[in-house]
Amino acid sequence: MSRKRQSEDSILRKIADSSRSPQVPRAGHSVALGIGDDAALFRPKPGHETILTCDWFLEGTHFLREKHPPDAVGWKCLARGVSDIAAMGGIPRCFLLSLALPETHTGRWLDLFLGGLQRASRKFQCALAGGDTTRRGEILINVTVVGEVKAGHAVLRSGARAGDILYVSGRLGEAELGLRIVRQSEGAASKKNPLTRKHLYPEPRVALGQWLVKKGLATAMMDLSDGLSSDLPRLCAASAVGALLEKVKIPQVLTPDDALKHGHDPGQLALHGGDDYELLFTIPPRKAKLLPKSFRGVNLTAIGRITRDRALLVLEENGHTRQLMPRGWDPFREKL
Amino acid sequence: MSRKRQSEDSILRKIADSSRSPQVPRAGHSVALGIGDDAALFRPKPGHETILTCDWFLEGTHFLREKHPPDAVGWKCLARGVSDIAAMGGIPRCFLLSLALPETHTGRWLDLFLGGLQRASRKFQCALAGGDTTRRGEILINVTVVGEVKAGHAVLRSGARAGDILYVSGRLGEAELGLRIVRQSEGAASKKNPLTRKHLYPEPRVALGQWLVKKGLATAMMDLSDGLSSDLPRLCAASAVGALLEKVKIPQVLTPDDALKHGHDPGQLALHGGDDYELLFTIPPRKAKLLPKSFRGVNLTAIGRITRDRALLVLEENGHTRQLMPRGWDPFREKL
Repeated sequence: MSRKRQSEDSILRKIADSSRSPQVPRAGHSVALGIGDDAALFRPKPGHETILTCDWFLEGTHFLREKHPPDAVGWKCLARGVSDIAAMGGIPRCFLLSLALPETHTGRWLDLFLGGLQRASRKFQCALAGGDTTRRGEILINVTVVGEVKAGHAVLRSGARAGDILYVSGRLGEAELGLRIVRQSEGAASKKNPLTRKHLYPEPRVALGQWLVKKGLATAMMDLSDGLSSDLPRLCAASAVGALLEKVKIPQVLTPDDALKHGHDPGQLALHGGDDYELLFTIPPRKAKLLPKSFRGVNLTAIGRITRDRALLVLEENGHTRQLMPRGWDPFREKL
Repeated sequence: MSRKRQSEDSILRKIADSSRSPQVPRAGHSVALGIGDDAALFRPKPGHETILTCDWFLEGTHFLREKHPPDAVGWKCLARGVSDIAAMGGIPRCFLLSLALPETHTGRWLDLFLGGLQRASRKFQCALAGGDTTRRGEILINVTVVGEVKAGHAVLRSGARAGDILYVSGRLGEAELGLRIVRQSEGAASKKNPLTRKHLYPEPRVALGQWLVKKGLATAMMDLSDGLSSDLPRLCAASAVGALLEKVKIPQVLTPDDALKHGHDPGQLALHGGDDYELLFTIPPRKAKLLPKSFRGVNLTAIGRITRDRALLVLEENGHTRQLMPRGWDPFREKL
């Protein structure tokens, strides 16, 4: 077998080897059978429901081969799915990796990619259970993440009620700023630039999601992947409610001067920027005092409230109210 | 919104609408929450393990946009994953669909595709639970199928023992013959040609797999997706055994004259042709008499036996024995 003709079996072996990390205890032994059979076997925890989510992560659409470090691609393709589990208040358990690669990328690129993936797998305690590989001119990734939540305890998008207070974790717009800096920079992105960190290595709010479920605080929840202005309408539509955002309250990038220096408006970044993987959730006013100002170093900020009237409004800094227009990420509207 | 600018939400709506078929009773109510939230919720059956599998189905690699009818693409992308569930003796429950499409294909092509997918979903009682969509120049599909099997009852690849008899369901090589006819024909494949049916609309052996588990007959099992000569070595490697195939016993295409007329050797088709989605399984000799000659109209044929010696051998028609060379489908070796 020539170096250019590595077979699917050998690629699979490389992936399987990388997943044998002693620090991922097969997700609490929930994976009864992993890579190497027709399918994986998962042992569900009694009294729990299984959370299932899948996400594309495609060269040219979600990342750029020449710009994005392979280990960031590995980290992020898992982190995105884990964020969906977090958004329902669940515990990540295992994942399936579908990978299509050019033969030129089955060596060093694959090793670095698997390194980032393994780091994420350890961090989120989410074990590789199986997958599918094939050869392809472009790098195509699809990740299915499996999580668990106590039966009946998942927080859905549909539970928001008029009067609930709308909260967001962390700061919004940082990932979008990072993306813009990566696109504007020449050559590969620097892994050391703090302004690109959230774009390259997002941290899904798994512990916060679980805590909100445990405390029974959130009535509705979702993760912000496409941007507040695109995602909030989805939560409101699912709950058959509207919302009034207070723009001045929306947490912006940590260093707004850096954003302005690069020519980007922090307020617009916060409203429309995607990929932050922060949690957007609603809490009834009577329970709001039970929510701390921050959770494990991540700020929790009230940014508006849910309204009976189904309009989506933004209260501007100047006191005027205008309609919220979705201008976040929609893959059928724009490319990376 | 122009016709060319259909948003992800509207594509999702189309997919969700197509999945609301009264004939798929949400897979026995195992899907607690489907499309429209951050993730799907699956209710595992007590005392069961969950089977997880995912498969690529990519234009140019697994199907050809101009040749393959969209409804066959929809049928087959689900059938392939369902076959992995069958190969462990499991019951299909639900699936996730990841779909990347050109905008030109979000109309009629998508409707026909979803029609085929819905037919398969009904046939296999496997409900659409969620997914991800994005825009792309090429049609990219990834399907995750979720199944269930009584805890500890899944039939793995690793259970074959020396002396076991090797069986296969149905006939081998028909899907490969169909593929060749489709490739040789001009324009789109005819859905009416019986010679291409198995290639376009494979029928995973779900009932047979479950029956073998229920009767406790099979020691090892897998589905034939890449071809006998590529898949048998995987079963043998997992079981740390070898095998002796009797070439004369391997069931070939129903109409060998048609194969020869098209210039294809039925014996080679049976040995190396992929995509048949028949079951390959092993049974201890003392239990062999409990296996019927056919199951629901599908022949069950002994084609050889498992050996302690780890070699993979073929007994030819002329009485000579030669080594089995894997010449089936390997996406890192060849393209469609």
